[in-house]
Amino acid sequence: MRVGLIGFGKTGKAVAATLLRNKSTILEWVVRKSEKLEHRSIPEFLGEESDEPGHIYSSNNLSIVSLLDNHPVDIIIDFSSEEGINYYGIEAAERGIGIISAVSHYREDKISFLKKLSKKTAVFWSPNITLGINYLMLAAKFLKKIAPHIDMAIIEEHFKDKPGVSGTAKVIAKNLDIKPEEIKSVRAGGIIGKHEILCGFPFQTVRLIHESITREAFGNGAIFAANNLRGKEAGLYTFEELLMPYFAL
Amino acid sequence: MRVGLIGFGKTGKAVAATLLRNKSTILEWVVRKSEKLEHRSIPEFLGEESDEPGHIYSSNNLSIVSLLDNHPVDIIIDFSSEEGINYYGIEAAERGIGIISAVSHYREDKISFLKKLSKKTAVFWSPNITLGINYLMLAAKFLKKIAPHIDMAIIEEHFKDKPGVSGTAKVIAKNLDIKPEEIKSVRAGGIIGKHEILCGFPFQTVRLIHESITREAFGNGAIFAANNLRGKEAGLYTFEELLMPYFAL
Amino acid sequence: MRVGLIGFGKTGKAVAATLLRNKSTILEWVVRKSEKLEHRSIPEFLGEESDEPGHIYSSNNLSIVSLLDNHPVDIIIDFSSEEGINYYGIEAAERGIGIISAVSHYREDKISFLKKLSKKTAVFWSPNITLGINYLMLAAKFLKKIAPHIDMAIIEEHFKDKPGVSGTAKVIAKNLDIKPEEIKSVRAGGIIGKHEILCGFPFQTVRLIHESITREAFGNGAIFAANNLRGKEAGLYTFEELLMPYFAL
Amino acid sequence: MRVGLIGFGKTGKAVAATLLRNKSTILEWVVRKSEKLEHRSIPEFLGEESDEPGHIYSSNNLSIVSLLDNHPVDIIIDFSSEEGINYYGIEAAERGIGIISAVSHYREDKISFLKKLSKKTAVFWSPNITLGINYLMLAAKFLKKIAPHIDMAIIEEHFKDKPGVSGTAKVIAKNLDIKPEEIKSVRAGGIIGKHEILCGFPFQTVRLIHESITREAFGNGAIFAANNLRGKEAGLYTFEELLMPYFAL
Repeated sequence: MRVGLIGFGKTGKAVAATLLRNKSTILEWVVRKSEKLEHRSIPEFLGEESDEPGHIYSSNNLSIVSLLDNHPVDIIIDFSSEEGINYYGIEAAERGIGIISAVSHYREDKISFLKKLSKKTAVFWSPNITLGINYLMLAAKFLKKIAPHIDMAIIEEHFKDKPGVSGTAKVIAKNLDIKPEEIKSVRAGGIIGKHEILCGFPFQTVRLIHESITREAFGNGAIFAANNLRGKEAGLYTFEELLMPYFAL
Repeated sequence: MRVGLIGFGKTGKAVAATLLRNKSTILEWVVRKSEKLEHRSIPEFLGEESDEPGHIYSSNNLSIVSLLDNHPVDIIIDFSSEEGINYYGIEAAERGIGIISAVSHYREDKISFLKKLSKKTAVFWSPNITLGINYLMLAAKFLKKIAPHIDMAIIEEHFKDKPGVSGTAKVIAKNLDIKPEEIKSVRAGGIIGKHEILCGFPFQTVRLIHESITREAFGNGAIFAANNLRGKEAGLYTFEELLMPYFAL
Repeated sequence: MRVGLIGFGKTGKAVAATLLRNKSTILEWVVRKSEKLEHRSIPEFLGEESDEPGHIYSSNNLSIVSLLDNHPVDIIIDFSSEEGINYYGIEAAERGIGIISAVSHYREDKISFLKKLSKKTAVFWSPNITLGINYLMLAAKFLKKIAPHIDMAIIEEHFKDKPGVSGTAKVIAKNLDIKPEEIKSVRAGGIIGKHEILCGFPFQTVRLIHESITREAFGNGAIFAANNLRGKEAGLYTFEELLMPYFAL
Repeated sequence: MRVGLIGFGKTGKAVAATLLRNKSTILEWVVRKSEKLEHRSIPEFLGEESDEPGHIYSSNNLSIVSLLDNHPVDIIIDFSSEEGINYYGIEAAERGIGIISAVSHYREDKISFLKKLSKKTAVFWSPNITLGINYLMLAAKFLKKIAPHIDMAIIEEHFKDKPGVSGTAKVIAKNLDIKPEEIKSVRAGGIIGKHEILCGFPFQTVRLIHESITREAFGNGAIFAANNLRGKEAGLYTFEELLMPYFAL
């Protein structure tokens, strides 16, 4: 599977490294706004032992048409910002290239744009693209169906300076109908990220816990999405929809 | 739903108390081997505020036929020993009464007997009947399908004197293809019971944890089984089969 | 060591059972307000196999003077309410009997009264008398001295209906200069009680966790206090002071 | 405080970065065996924003005498191997420079050598130099004095490929008289490192948990050791001895 990556910030770099190490994907190119690393080899820049051919380009100096003409891909993975989709969206949809967006937030008009694109190609969007979090969210949803009267709370821990409640905790809470006041946010030291969904029964407790180790976890989530979006017909897909088929015996 | 309970040891008593507190069931009787508490009122003996009519009987002095003639039930819940089924099995099957067995171990011949009974009535057997443990086991199974390469281990903690590896941990391990050496058994102080299924990804960790608070958790599991076995046709059911329909959107 | 117990509610009963099982103490009597169980044998009522001689008395019908004349003790352990001390305080101080109070809250005038009594006998007061919590609080205090810049937070979990922030969490926070907003209170199901002091360093995390299993833990704390208060001269003692000598090599 | 660092492997680099960020220390030089990075500026190589002057040298091409003549230090921190001390030991002792060794294992003859050096200067050796682990070990020792009958076990978790029982777990076990079979080693995914000392009481549980986030934790431990070794007279010091004064009110 040939992959193009949009965005090359801290997370984008970790995702690129994961893609290089993964045998089911070939990272054909990275596109970013900045011209800083233009034309550098991706494996060489990241210090990864890989003979994949991909280079870094700036969206300022290269049109998506000539990029895709010269370096066609099957999937575009987007770890940039809300604006990233403007660069590649229409052309990708025209060519039937799958779109995987891990952008954490889109305004209403962007969501409409995604929907429009999804008429022509398979589009996937998940604001938190780690496999573990999405699995836990779905598993917890089923537990609530099994035992509707349990009390659910979320405990999330992150490094001292992370402001506000974690976006992931908010998404979990919304998905599980947990009231915002039942999210407990702890901020201390250098904790990378921990989310616990605590389920209290009268005589037993179930804890579903996710701990992040490094950003590379996002890369693995994107690869899972890419592998499971492949061959899907046009439409807008969520992580839940890609996971659902695995919840069967 | 009218319920009869076989067995009145420590766990049986906790289950009886849970049944009395539950509005969807009426506990019609308890049968035990010992003649010690014969003819005592169940709520009165347990100190439960309940006006349910059930009394305690000894299997030595009362045949299952006259018991069921005088106090018919929809479901028999068995928290006794391997031998308990000899007392009520055939008669329950004849009458189409659902059987829920939480006996922790059956020899091969007993399992054959269960299968025979299940030709005529709905029979359910689970060696650990807590909802939480069975849910976690199934949820973990799906995670393994989603991410086949994760490393799984089981950490189980119990009170100092509990001998050997917990039966529940063994069942989990068997279900998830976890090697026995990946079960870590901790014995310390008065810990009631904790089971953790640790799932290690390269860049994230998922922990599925169950903690027991009191034995009443078994009662709630039995009630769940009773409610979900109701109306099922004849057959031998596992906890997995009763849970499976809830793993759907 | 001969012990008298004031208070016989749920916790008082658990403490009495622990005292009966403990070989270093003899439970000479229990005094409570209610006349309900008057003159019952303590081991008989609690169903404990013990040949200790203690009986239950009501403070309505028996003066402390005649109680202590007939059944002298070395230590009085108080698990009653704020008013309990009125019954026995002055007489205990006169006779040099050690006082151990586990009453969770005293008004200012009661604290003054305790101080007055402590001029004549050894008085110990701890609003949470479990060994584990008091140990953790002191250990955390030392960690803060070692690493003054760590971020500290408290996560406390209790059963659904427990109102407000746990008193123990408040005491820990006060002792460690943790701001009230850094206490996260989770309420779910039937959780007995868990307190975690989370200490965040930039590149590591230390968690000091206490989990209650049953109320008997209070009994063991009282026995520790009794054993360590013995032989101490008159004065008002805290749990910290009794623990301090153990923090040495 | 002027510091010299011996060793520049993965951990050495993380320690160097921590030293550069720390205001109480100036990193005067790094010495390593390899000639690869010879004469590079430390902050420049590590990409740290710092104007500290230190450079990287190879022990092959520079004698310790001329190094210390040109770049005198107050403390030498050793994250190299067992052999590192041969390079700098005698000269450091002669000049009264404090020695902090975080080498994980020394043979008997090396320990004798350390002892000899410690007659002339302050020498500190700790096989695991993180603050958190050493604090927990000491705190657990005191808990065992407070409650000698508790059951203690160690649960340690690390990445899949870590062979054998963690050295740190062994040291904790030896210090606390925990039998080797009570150490439970879990290996899964990419877990950086977690050590839990579980203390089981009959009616409560205390858990002392340390989680590593990154190797920089070693740097902070070394800085703590450096700050607390300063001004100490000649002698061989352990982490326990440096921590002990903080366990006081």
